[in-house]
Amino acid sequence: MPEVVFRFEDGRTIQTSAAKGSSLLETARNANVVIDAPCSGNGACGKCRVKLAAGALPSKKTLHITEEEFEQGWRLACISSVEENIEVEVPDVASAFKKRMKIANLDSKEETAIFEEAKREIEGTGIHMKNAMELLSVDMKAPSLDDTMPDNERLERAVKQMTGASDVRMSYAVLKKLPVVLRECEFRVQCVAERVGEDVFIYDILPKAGENIIGGLAVDIGTTSVVALLIDLATGKILSKASAGNGQIRYGADVINRIIESAKEGGLKRLQDAIVMETINPLILEICRDANLAPECIYRICVAANTTMNHLFAGICADYLRQEPYIPAFFKTHSILASDIGIRIHPDAPVVFAPNVGSYVGGDITAGTLVSLLWNRPEFSLFMDLGTNGELVFGNSDFMMCCACSAGPAFEGGDISCGMRATDGAIEACEISAEDMEPHVRVIGDAGQKPVGICGSGIIDTISELFRTGMINPKGKFVREGKRIRHDEHGMGSYVLAYQEEAAGNKDIEITEVDIDNFIRAKGAIFSAVRIMLNSIDFDITMIDKVYVAGGIGSGINMKNAIRIGMFPDIEIEKFHYIGNSSLTGAYAMLMSTEAERKIYDLAGNMTYLELSAIPAYMDEFVACCFLPHTDAELFPSVV
Amino acid sequence: MPEVVFRFEDGRTIQTSAAKGSSLLETARNANVVIDAPCSGNGACGKCRVKLAAGALPSKKTLHITEEEFEQGWRLACISSVEENIEVEVPDVASAFKKRMKIANLDSKEETAIFEEAKREIEGTGIHMKNAMELLSVDMKAPSLDDTMPDNERLERAVKQMTGASDVRMSYAVLKKLPVVLRECEFRVQCVAERVGEDVFIYDILPKAGENIIGGLAVDIGTTSVVALLIDLATGKILSKASAGNGQIRYGADVINRIIESAKEGGLKRLQDAIVMETINPLILEICRDANLAPECIYRICVAANTTMNHLFAGICADYLRQEPYIPAFFKTHSILASDIGIRIHPDAPVVFAPNVGSYVGGDITAGTLVSLLWNRPEFSLFMDLGTNGELVFGNSDFMMCCACSAGPAFEGGDISCGMRATDGAIEACEISAEDMEPHVRVIGDAGQKPVGICGSGIIDTISELFRTGMINPKGKFVREGKRIRHDEHGMGSYVLAYQEEAAGNKDIEITEVDIDNFIRAKGAIFSAVRIMLNSIDFDITMIDKVYVAGGIGSGINMKNAIRIGMFPDIEIEKFHYIGNSSLTGAYAMLMSTEAERKIYDLAGNMTYLELSAIPAYMDEFVACCFLPHTDAELFPSVV
Repeated sequence: MPEVVFRFEDGRTIQTSAAKGSSLLETARNANVVIDAPCSGNGACGKCRVKLAAGALPSKKTLHITEEEFEQGWRLACISSVEENIEVEVPDVASAFKKRMKIANLDSKEETAIFEEAKREIEGTGIHMKNAMELLSVDMKAPSLDDTMPDNERLERAVKQMTGASDVRMSYAVLKKLPVVLRECEFRVQCVAERVGEDVFIYDILPKAGENIIGGLAVDIGTTSVVALLIDLATGKILSKASAGNGQIRYGADVINRIIESAKEGGLKRLQDAIVMETINPLILEICRDANLAPECIYRICVAANTTMNHLFAGICADYLRQEPYIPAFFKTHSILASDIGIRIHPDAPVVFAPNVGSYVGGDITAGTLVSLLWNRPEFSLFMDLGTNGELVFGNSDFMMCCACSAGPAFEGGDISCGMRATDGAIEACEISAEDMEPHVRVIGDAGQKPVGICGSGIIDTISELFRTGMINPKGKFVREGKRIRHDEHGMGSYVLAYQEEAAGNKDIEITEVDIDNFIRAKGAIFSAVRIMLNSIDFDITMIDKVYVAGGIGSGINMKNAIRIGMFPDIEIEKFHYIGNSSLTGAYAMLMSTEAERKIYDLAGNMTYLELSAIPAYMDEFVACCFLPHTDAELFPSVV
Repeated sequence: MPEVVFRFEDGRTIQTSAAKGSSLLETARNANVVIDAPCSGNGACGKCRVKLAAGALPSKKTLHITEEEFEQGWRLACISSVEENIEVEVPDVASAFKKRMKIANLDSKEETAIFEEAKREIEGTGIHMKNAMELLSVDMKAPSLDDTMPDNERLERAVKQMTGASDVRMSYAVLKKLPVVLRECEFRVQCVAERVGEDVFIYDILPKAGENIIGGLAVDIGTTSVVALLIDLATGKILSKASAGNGQIRYGADVINRIIESAKEGGLKRLQDAIVMETINPLILEICRDANLAPECIYRICVAANTTMNHLFAGICADYLRQEPYIPAFFKTHSILASDIGIRIHPDAPVVFAPNVGSYVGGDITAGTLVSLLWNRPEFSLFMDLGTNGELVFGNSDFMMCCACSAGPAFEGGDISCGMRATDGAIEACEISAEDMEPHVRVIGDAGQKPVGICGSGIIDTISELFRTGMINPKGKFVREGKRIRHDEHGMGSYVLAYQEEAAGNKDIEITEVDIDNFIRAKGAIFSAVRIMLNSIDFDITMIDKVYVAGGIGSGINMKNAIRIGMFPDIEIEKFHYIGNSSLTGAYAMLMSTEAERKIYDLAGNMTYLELSAIPAYMDEFVACCFLPHTDAELFPSVV
């Protein structure tokens, strides 16, 4: 069998062997080499570029690789076939997905403020922000020949006396360490305990000496990105935060491709490993190192994720989500412990999910809905979570309706040639002069930060400005010429936002007609969903009192520009609020408070789910929305 | 490092390397080679014989190996040191411990009858012989676009409707298989469920088509032997039974040596592996093959074992059992699932222990006490469990007192040169003619079965007959000469029960003065415990109304002979009842019935534990009991 060597920019190599004729992308996947393949390997997206360094690698022709690049060795892994021993370089380009990246540490107070504000706001609705975990200091009398009660009963008796619990239970892990810990600590210990109704459950027993922390983890598992927040469950203090790309990305950019992959032989395990072993466990190590806490000291994990992510994370067959009648295995569940699915925190830590509402409206949206507080107001609000799965909720304190659409990863910088997430180096805002067509960009980061790529909010601005200045037409095609406008050999136009010498990387940062087209389809998916949902209950856009925008699109989002390109309904700017990653904030609230957790279950139970794919008008509306701003200009009076 | 090859009689070899100078026994243990070492490797018992086949193996001199045998290559592994590459043969002699052996299959109806009779008797006391496990047939409506309830809620709803349960819970394993099983079975399934108060817990979900069985396992973990019984929890039917030697035997014959070994670096894991991985898991495979049931279909395991065995089985530090004030980690616990400790049955199967009463009175005795029914009678009964750990209970329906003593493995054939358990080939009874000193033996097995060794009941008979015929004196030394009486070079006497040509093996079956001495110490330990316990409450032997004898000594036990050697109190023969392995029978009852389980907890709570080692008179009494029948002949009027 031919040998394949993958070489990374940092010098690491991974060597594997492959059956003759097998695809290079498959070979990479089997060897756990992460190569972007948002389109799941059908040659469409052009992301899986590698460079041949030795040997011959036959490959189909593609528009994504120029003749010159082909000569230099560039190939798309998905359409290349391994025929002999080869060595390929895996480029480490500025990519939203390539490797784990910290979006933000808690070095800024603003980060913490988001959660504290959310906590205060939720508290304002009457929800008590208190969870059931406690750190109990337990002093026992040491046993003697006259008092020979066994260790477990001794502890149980002491905890009962202390808490008034009618029953005290403990896990095997506690029983196992009990005899040694009790004697090392001279029968003065701390218990990590949870009140469960009248009972107390002991998760852990620790020496009284140290400063013991009951860690809790909130995780937002997005299709594209994953963010984790570590808190102290006893005090509510935020300890650390970290994020990473979802390791499943190499199996496809959207949930449908992931489900298809998971239904293949061994696929469910591969997809679960990609999120648990490759993404979340390393993230936990990172976040714990940051906070100086042992991962075993995390006793609860709350997950907010869409239904597919929930299932794949839990290692539960997701295939029926995409088969009529689209039935999930669970909306909510309390059957899962961390050790069941290989999450490396305390083995008995419960895995709690923000509940799903349907196959395509998941816990990310129910968690976000809690945070939006739309359920607590008489006014009609629209909540939009702009992820790879776009999800919407419309309603007020009387009713809620929700739906989901597949937007693709464009909002988070995916499917965009120079796209990236809203982190240091991302162009988050852009103005273009109508006269000289020169851009003026704002880059996330310290002063002097050179641009690396462009995030969602920057893409909105750029497209909006190109449209406003007449450089592109409503179909997103370039219709003016200029210094910064280029056309490749196939005639495809692009606009250079930053030349190589101005940028941090070694290439121009540009936006192409393909990028614009991808983004228009993403915004079209969202806006058509808004229209169909409102129509279905005889509401129209003017009846919306508030719009909450959530997601990784970036806090720099310019609502006016988003309206101009027809992404958001054309109502007063003041009605829009960007609330950041509300899925994570919701998971945080759920972790912090038993009542908030119960409230989310209530909310989920009260949401009416609208299956867009069952509505024939949706496809027509979507097509009509794939224009700037829309084929029906009357919907956007302020733009016209 | 020198290489060591162990070669077995069946041709298998195990190769390992050892640090120069390390003991051959240690080397064998590290390589998981089972070599008997009841004395835990101090050269005392002479059981760890191996034969050198290649290389040189320096070894200390020992009485256990003659000059001639040494020349032939025989060595004791424990006192031999590995200095160079060697190959040794591990003999496969008829031994009580060498390898797993079936004591009895369920080919005889008698086997089953024991358990059915116990069940009837316990039922006679008003205990309902019914457990909380149920096989529920659940038919659900298949989901549709109009009925999109997720799978877990669909099942929960159906089970609630069916059972009236207020809450239905399921394990992760059930949730994981749920979507696939439901659809494969068209939403008609069977659930393995347990009623827990008002709730129902679902352990498993199975296709409705097959004949599904809820397996339950009762296990008696003796220090020397392990016996397992498989039943159908729904019907109570006994499916299969199997037994094996306790794999921990290579770490010492008694509980103290095992505890010492377990306290060494990595020792707890080694001891746990020896019982779980090497003994019980293979036993489960065997018993399941026999019953044609998958091990995953066993949903509950009840264990009756002494306190040390309980702890080591559960992988919980046992070291404090032998340190004052002798405190166990638990008497009873519901914290342990099969998967916690590596038992390969259904991972969520609870591991239920017959409760311990003290560090040296364990679940074997509480389980046995239930079966003896002494707690249900006004008469005073004595219950004696003759294991390696001898345990006693005395009392009636008003009070119970218990104690334990270390008898060693002699009752089960251990520490006896030709000893074996009460299985095919064992001499179970013996008469010796006073005139010609010729023996007449009875051998367990089919007609014509040649003797392989001698079990506990046979040893009692032989010693009793040697004593009655004046061949040995009250100290157990040979005082007559005869054809079958031999003396070795050191003058140690022995009596040949069967010559090589009459026996199944290739050596004479004899009983030596060392054997007799070992057995006298075992019976002395038991009888002195009886005396001290009765004395402590001002009872004497004549006040005993009934004696229940349990243990692996063999159903052929001759009570008259046992009295003659001073093992049992000298009261009317009619008062004695051999009740076999009451520990296993008790575990069976506990498995069969929730009420029986509760009753055993009650019994344990009502037993007064007498710590013999805290009573100075015990040692004197023990010494006085190490005679035939006793130094105080008045205690045995019928013998004199």
